[in-house]
Amino acid sequence: MKIAVIGAGNVGGALGKLWAGKGHEIMFGVPDPKSDKLAALLQSIGGKARAASVAEAAAFGDIAVLATPWPAAEAAIAAAAGRLAGKILVDCTNPLAPDLSGLVIGTDTSAAEAVARWARGAKVVKAFNTIGAANFADPRFGSAAASMFIAGDDAAAKSVVSGLAAELGFDPVDTGPLLAARWLEPLAMLWIHLAFKQGLGPTSHAFRLLRRQV
Amino acid sequence: MKIAVIGAGNVGGALGKLWAGKGHEIMFGVPDPKSDKLAALLQSIGGKARAASVAEAAAFGDIAVLATPWPAAEAAIAAAAGRLAGKILVDCTNPLAPDLSGLVIGTDTSAAEAVARWARGAKVVKAFNTIGAANFADPRFGSAAASMFIAGDDAAAKSVVSGLAAELGFDPVDTGPLLAARWLEPLAMLWIHLAFKQGLGPTSHAFRLLRRQV
Repeated sequence: MKIAVIGAGNVGGALGKLWAGKGHEIMFGVPDPKSDKLAALLQSIGGKARAASVAEAAAFGDIAVLATPWPAAEAAIAAAAGRLAGKILVDCTNPLAPDLSGLVIGTDTSAAEAVARWARGAKVVKAFNTIGAANFADPRFGSAAASMFIAGDDAAAKSVVSGLAAELGFDPVDTGPLLAARWLEPLAMLWIHLAFKQGLGPTSHAFRLLRRQV
Repeated sequence: MKIAVIGAGNVGGALGKLWAGKGHEIMFGVPDPKSDKLAALLQSIGGKARAASVAEAAAFGDIAVLATPWPAAEAAIAAAAGRLAGKILVDCTNPLAPDLSGLVIGTDTSAAEAVARWARGAKVVKAFNTIGAANFADPRFGSAAASMFIAGDDAAAKSVVSGLAAELGFDPVDTGPLLAARWLEPLAMLWIHLAFKQGLGPTSHAFRLLRRQV
């Protein structure tokens, strides 16, 4: 697939690199595609990814991944200038307070629902927000795979995103409509709280949805 | 232990019955201890539990468990009339909207923190809220135990509650101070959403915190 990765920080950089390794065509969309940081990232991916403006990347991708910090999300979508309409837009953001003490959006709505309002016509799927990016390369914890919780209103779009999560080794879990992001964003806070307030660190823990036949 | 179980619905009834089976002394505290419903519950427990007023139960217990519906929680604590001070109070509540569509408290505070304000002097521990009560008797999902997420400001109190969770077969997870309930109450909503909005039902799924050495 042609994947536009909007944002090239921890989350976007890890996803772009890993999916490039699986044979996908990656274009990072960033405000400054010629920066040294981007050059280093592209070098680490070995020529299987490119960098461009957000608008160019959005035009390139069959699917786009929003992986900016939350305060930059609205401007990034505006920079895509309507090129996301009709496409899958994977929302990886979390509306974090700057000191990681909490969320700036409560449970009456969600960052994902804001993204869907801003990216009119895109098929928004919440994913890749409930575990730190340092685990994307290795989502196995002993004999169990971490779950990747997914929410969205378009079943076909969720199926594509589930496939991208499974390619990385995650156990994809469809949690239903996009409004389930109201529970997935606090789940991300629980992961972050355990990692950075409780001292577990960035790679020691993950959530899994256990299931059984009833 | 002498355990006061305040509320005798699905959650309190299941916990009281199971802990009675483990040899604990159980007293249910309810507004109407002589009701037919209580008589049937006590009968099902086979004489190893009693029912009394909330104040009597609170005075009896070494530890108390708040298992009322959220709208009844403040009045139940008031009915305990100060007898919870200095004791462990396990808060099992979730501040659910009546139609289960969401939470009436967002992520800036939590039901647990409200309980701590109302039950002045009690050592409040959030627990037994992130999975349906129908799983309390059997928290194993295949080869894995469901996690029981616990939060509280008193380490010794959390240790006691972790022990009570482990007695039922849960994997206890200490998530830190009571304010972590801000993330555990939305986690309960995710469980409820999957059970009753997404059709998984009350006994097919549970969360587990995966861990690995790093």
